[in-house]
Amino acid sequence: MASGKGCYVGFDLGGTKMLAVVANRDFKVLARAKKKTKAEGGFSEGLARMEACLEEALAAAGAGVESLLGIGFGLPGVLDFKAGKIVRLTNVGWTNVPLKKIFEEKYGAPVAIENDVNAGTYGECRFGAGKGCHDVVGIFPGTGIGGGIIIGGKIHHGVTGAAGELGHLVYDPTGPHCGCGNRGCFEAYASRVAISARAAEAVSRGKAPALQKLAGANLDEIRSSALAKSIKQGDKIVEEIVREAAYIVGILAADMVNALSPSMIVLGGGLVQAMGAIYVEECKRAVESHAMPELRRGVRVAAAKLGDDSVALGAIALAAEAGKKE
Amino acid sequence: MASGKGCYVGFDLGGTKMLAVVANRDFKVLARAKKKTKAEGGFSEGLARMEACLEEALAAAGAGVESLLGIGFGLPGVLDFKAGKIVRLTNVGWTNVPLKKIFEEKYGAPVAIENDVNAGTYGECRFGAGKGCHDVVGIFPGTGIGGGIIIGGKIHHGVTGAAGELGHLVYDPTGPHCGCGNRGCFEAYASRVAISARAAEAVSRGKAPALQKLAGANLDEIRSSALAKSIKQGDKIVEEIVREAAYIVGILAADMVNALSPSMIVLGGGLVQAMGAIYVEECKRAVESHAMPELRRGVRVAAAKLGDDSVALGAIALAAEAGKKE
Repeated sequence: MASGKGCYVGFDLGGTKMLAVVANRDFKVLARAKKKTKAEGGFSEGLARMEACLEEALAAAGAGVESLLGIGFGLPGVLDFKAGKIVRLTNVGWTNVPLKKIFEEKYGAPVAIENDVNAGTYGECRFGAGKGCHDVVGIFPGTGIGGGIIIGGKIHHGVTGAAGELGHLVYDPTGPHCGCGNRGCFEAYASRVAISARAAEAVSRGKAPALQKLAGANLDEIRSSALAKSIKQGDKIVEEIVREAAYIVGILAADMVNALSPSMIVLGGGLVQAMGAIYVEECKRAVESHAMPELRRGVRVAAAKLGDDSVALGAIALAAEAGKKE
Repeated sequence: MASGKGCYVGFDLGGTKMLAVVANRDFKVLARAKKKTKAEGGFSEGLARMEACLEEALAAAGAGVESLLGIGFGLPGVLDFKAGKIVRLTNVGWTNVPLKKIFEEKYGAPVAIENDVNAGTYGECRFGAGKGCHDVVGIFPGTGIGGGIIIGGKIHHGVTGAAGELGHLVYDPTGPHCGCGNRGCFEAYASRVAISARAAEAVSRGKAPALQKLAGANLDEIRSSALAKSIKQGDKIVEEIVREAAYIVGILAADMVNALSPSMIVLGGGLVQAMGAIYVEECKRAVESHAMPELRRGVRVAAAKLGDDSVALGAIALAAEAGKKE
């Protein structure tokens, strides 16, 4: 790429790792770079790592910082959109960071910040599974269950900016405790952590021999890829556990169909990347059972298509829009 | 009112009765008329009754049909907004009626059609409990549980036009059968019919002496007003039954806060009109327990203020907007 044509960088910042994606004006991906977040080092160390990651990705694309047209961030936490600030990133630990100002001053390019699942849903809506759709609900089961709502082609933030907390809708008000402090949220039943806990139980009872070898009964080792492998290797109980969780995600999808009548439900995140067929199948089954006939006819359920890039590409699209406004 | 200044008529059409409200250009109510729907007579008889009701209301306001600036309809069923048609009115029985065309040709004034709960939520948003709010979710527990979603000051229809079926979100996927054919919808737990069935049980067991006298164990007699009276007269078990149902409505409200982050939840319909304090109290309690802290801080929960007029006034506001577009 001739750097004079300009390019965008999109960030997907997670609790353990960060991904920077470089794309050209046509949103074609030119290069990527990854780094560990090392959240424990605090924001100043994190900032240095983000800058290094950004510049590494640009270099890999054969571009310099002078060619930057915009930078977008998908961030896991609470944001102040008007001020362009991080209020709090739960799993990263950073609070009260004027991220937009910092990066605009350093690189002289417009910066957009967005919640990561909102950005991922927007990425899929613009460039992936939901291309051409204007009303899309994204459900991203992973460590938690994130949600993103696109209405009329725009991310719905609500009055607080924090709309889309779909993992914390109530599945059973008398159910188990959830990380948020409430009880019986969808997340408490169908997050990767909830699935892993049930799978670890099966390992402990000697019912999941493949998973036993792959990960043992340690929740931190029972990640999406280990679950997927153990199912392929014949652990029927693990498949049942994942299918039950995927069906519960499908009930959440049906709820969103009944409430919002979107044209598409996009399923994304690590679990779906690893076991897309199971997730799409169970979600379709739940939508068929629990969405109203008039509404379910209007909706398509599909897995995300952009893989690890969905958040960064959504953030890039938002950066491009921020640039046009300025 | 001088008829030369013009006025609007709004209809709230129900399965058993219809209400026509006349308002001036400032949306001040001038007069009302009511008639039985007599749905069993089919649409042609219904149309004659609607026209008579409209003209009676106009006459009560001292206005003639020549002064009509617009007509709005709040209708209980499935509509085709583009074509201005009724697709199907569930409890009325009319299907495939080009209502907009019929009334525009007869009265020469612009006509707007809308789902009744959407219209009621919009009425409250424009003139009632949600005045000044742009992001409002309406929940109207009654024979069923209707929902309306206002985003950015506009009714959210979704791709099918039928968004806002909040009564059919899932409360418990293994729960009792719902009128829609699914299981465990919020409506199956917290509609007036579900409440009346539980109250009738209490009557049968001799635990609700006041309700016994007021309505007996007949579900058709145990209406909102009878429930409210029996509570006032000391039927503790009836109060418990209503509070439990109101709390379940509150869980639905919490779900909507987590998903959409509205500035307001408006509770309306017959049960709330009869027992507003109980409904608002239990809903606030459920939102406090089940909505995320960041999101619940942004939301107010209140009972509808316009009473029987909310649907008709919402329909009038929509008719006024339809008139501006033409």
